Amino acid sequence: MEVPGFYGAAVEAGIKYKDRLDLGVIFSKASCNLAAVFTRNIVKAAPVLDSMEIIKRSSSFRAIVVNSGNANACTGKQGLDDCLSIRKKASESLGCKEEEVLVASTGVIGAFLPMERYLAGLEKACASLKKDGLLDVSQAILTTDTRHKVAMREVEGQGSPITVFGMAKGAGMIAPNMGPPQATMLAFVLTNAVVDPDLWQGMLEEAVDASFNRITVDGDTSTNDTVLALANGQARNQVIDGHETLSEEFEKALYDVLQSLAEQIVMDGEGATKCVRVTVNGAASDEDAKVCASTISNSPLVKTAFFGQDPNWGRIIAAAGRSGAYFDPNKVTIAIGGVRVAERGMACGQDAEKEAAEKMKRSRFDVEIDLKAGKYSHSMLTCDFSTEYVHINADYRT
Amino acid sequence: MEVPGFYGAAVEAGIKYKDRLDLGVIFSKASCNLAAVFTRNIVKAAPVLDSMEIIKRSSSFRAIVVNSGNANACTGKQGLDDCLSIRKKASESLGCKEEEVLVASTGVIGAFLPMERYLAGLEKACASLKKDGLLDVSQAILTTDTRHKVAMREVEGQGSPITVFGMAKGAGMIAPNMGPPQATMLAFVLTNAVVDPDLWQGMLEEAVDASFNRITVDGDTSTNDTVLALANGQARNQVIDGHETLSEEFEKALYDVLQSLAEQIVMDGEGATKCVRVTVNGAASDEDAKVCASTISNSPLVKTAFFGQDPNWGRIIAAAGRSGAYFDPNKVTIAIGGVRVAERGMACGQDAEKEAAEKMKRSRFDVEIDLKAGKYSHSMLTCDFSTEYVHINADYRT
Repeated sequence: MEVPGFYGAAVEAGIKYKDRLDLGVIFSKASCNLAAVFTRNIVKAAPVLDSMEIIKRSSSFRAIVVNSGNANACTGKQGLDDCLSIRKKASESLGCKEEEVLVASTGVIGAFLPMERYLAGLEKACASLKKDGLLDVSQAILTTDTRHKVAMREVEGQGSPITVFGMAKGAGMIAPNMGPPQATMLAFVLTNAVVDPDLWQGMLEEAVDASFNRITVDGDTSTNDTVLALANGQARNQVIDGHETLSEEFEKALYDVLQSLAEQIVMDGEGATKCVRVTVNGAASDEDAKVCASTISNSPLVKTAFFGQDPNWGRIIAAAGRSGAYFDPNKVTIAIGGVRVAERGMACGQDAEKEAAEKMKRSRFDVEIDLKAGKYSHSMLTCDFSTEYVHINADYRT
Repeated sequence: MEVPGFYGAAVEAGIKYKDRLDLGVIFSKASCNLAAVFTRNIVKAAPVLDSMEIIKRSSSFRAIVVNSGNANACTGKQGLDDCLSIRKKASESLGCKEEEVLVASTGVIGAFLPMERYLAGLEKACASLKKDGLLDVSQAILTTDTRHKVAMREVEGQGSPITVFGMAKGAGMIAPNMGPPQATMLAFVLTNAVVDPDLWQGMLEEAVDASFNRITVDGDTSTNDTVLALANGQARNQVIDGHETLSEEFEKALYDVLQSLAEQIVMDGEGATKCVRVTVNGAASDEDAKVCASTISNSPLVKTAFFGQDPNWGRIIAAAGRSGAYFDPNKVTIAIGGVRVAERGMACGQDAEKEAAEKMKRSRFDVEIDLKAGKYSHSMLTCDFSTEYVHINADYRT
């Protein structure tokens, strides 16, 4: 997977793990427009604060440096100084300006980066950049993930095709809530399109709201969630500014890439065996639909029932009932795997539950609840809660 | 454990389980003042709706009928009719009025009560009431609980001593949020005191707010949470109306009983191996203190770290940061088991974490976070998230 004009490389810097890639560099020969969103957690990691600061004074970017194993969060002034050192070192090695470099991190909170090993690894990575190196970077950003996550779409341009490529990591501390310059969930989007900078930012925000901001693994919004999207303009298309026909196709490609990555994150959620789409229909307001979908998607009782393949809709209606959304419990319908298990707030019977239990054996299924209180809907993707989830998170740092 | 004037009995009615007590009756020869609070979940079980309705038109009560194994929730009109049948049958067997009987249930949501077995069991229970039968009732109300929960305090009255006795059940679906006539968590409080009815209700509400409403096992507020408190006046003390000296002691006894039951519920939380008091200090508002304590107490990442005895304060500060409470991350201090592990938002070092890890080996310890943003505080009791929790809840209905 290549994107014209972009180069990647990853190395084993020994930041926390041994014998695995843990430091990556993405580089563009040409200057890029950047669109970015960051976690809304008020505890923000140093690289998030650093990036938010640079974005204020810089309008073109060329490189991303990213590491796993250490989040560089809760590290105070030293954490910020370390980001600056990383940007300086990268700019020297890459022959660009330090304010053209962005830093991202994921891993343990509260530990300082091992800067000697970090900078040595960074130098090595910068020296080994190659066109087909992006997949190595997608490996280097993983923590508790079991597999790397990439997605690509092509749009016909004028002359050269336009590529939209994305990579992401995330398996735990996943309940992204990202906003304009503001899991760890990290995602990097690369495209060779020429796109108006303001439109690019707006498109990214909308696509993130419809994808990453609608997934949850554990309800725990990270200090490091970051999406950086670079457009290097190498396709030399007429600028995408929202007025030409290309705009819609390009936006669709961006959304498809983010949605694919979001689904891959949930499928690879810590200990997950199921990916479940929870849809709330008939809510009295948009806010009600969202809070209800989120409460069901994060309920430990609902998620353990998913793991147990038990169509225990009582837990679903109980979660809806405590969510704050308004509805009449005597009107609600619930379907699991397309099988209606509750109607007018009551059970549809053993046969329906047996059929739903069969559907729950699949690795993906839908839960739909109709509150019959209005016309608003909201969907979220969640996963189940398994014994493996507890093992992973009880033993994470040891 | 006896309370003058109160009788109890429990039987094996075969409602869901075999070979265990699952139906209990509490009876008072004299009329009682009732204080009561119910779940604020908008999905309320039939016995909750039934009780809220009777309370509107009845001012004196004599009996509580309670079952485990079936919550009689999401059962529509039939669920309400079944409550009425239970009250009628009880009133016949006990020789009282049907509106002097209250019904409570806990167990699976969405199934109708097996009324034939229920009424047969009820008749048997009413025929075997005895003064020392209250402990049997405390057994009959258990579901996933591993042990029964009772507490008693005595206050010197005028002549006869005043007893405040309480029993409770609850191990899962525990995040009580109960309010005036409004886990399943069930608790019954019995006293022989003479107490002004309005004061009795006010005292109960305050004591519940300071005890049951500050515990969580899984964050899932039940459809059936109920506290019923009966005062039969047999101590013949001068009425407790808030103006005499007895009032304060009596209120303290009530709080102690509820707090003891609340702690017993958390200690017996589904799969729990730890009971942890999470205290937020220095919050900018009461609301901030509450939402921050609740978010930390319900975070799956924090709770699995408790299980792993890992002083992973990064997860605690990350949960605080997403809670909605305002604070400056660079000022926060965090202590685990009395050991300060983070100061000014940064790690205190390996030695502190090792010491804290030692404290976490205990079955009870404290987590304290000071937001340094104001003067408000809030505490909650929570438990850890274990592999056993997942086993219990994945297999609950099978």
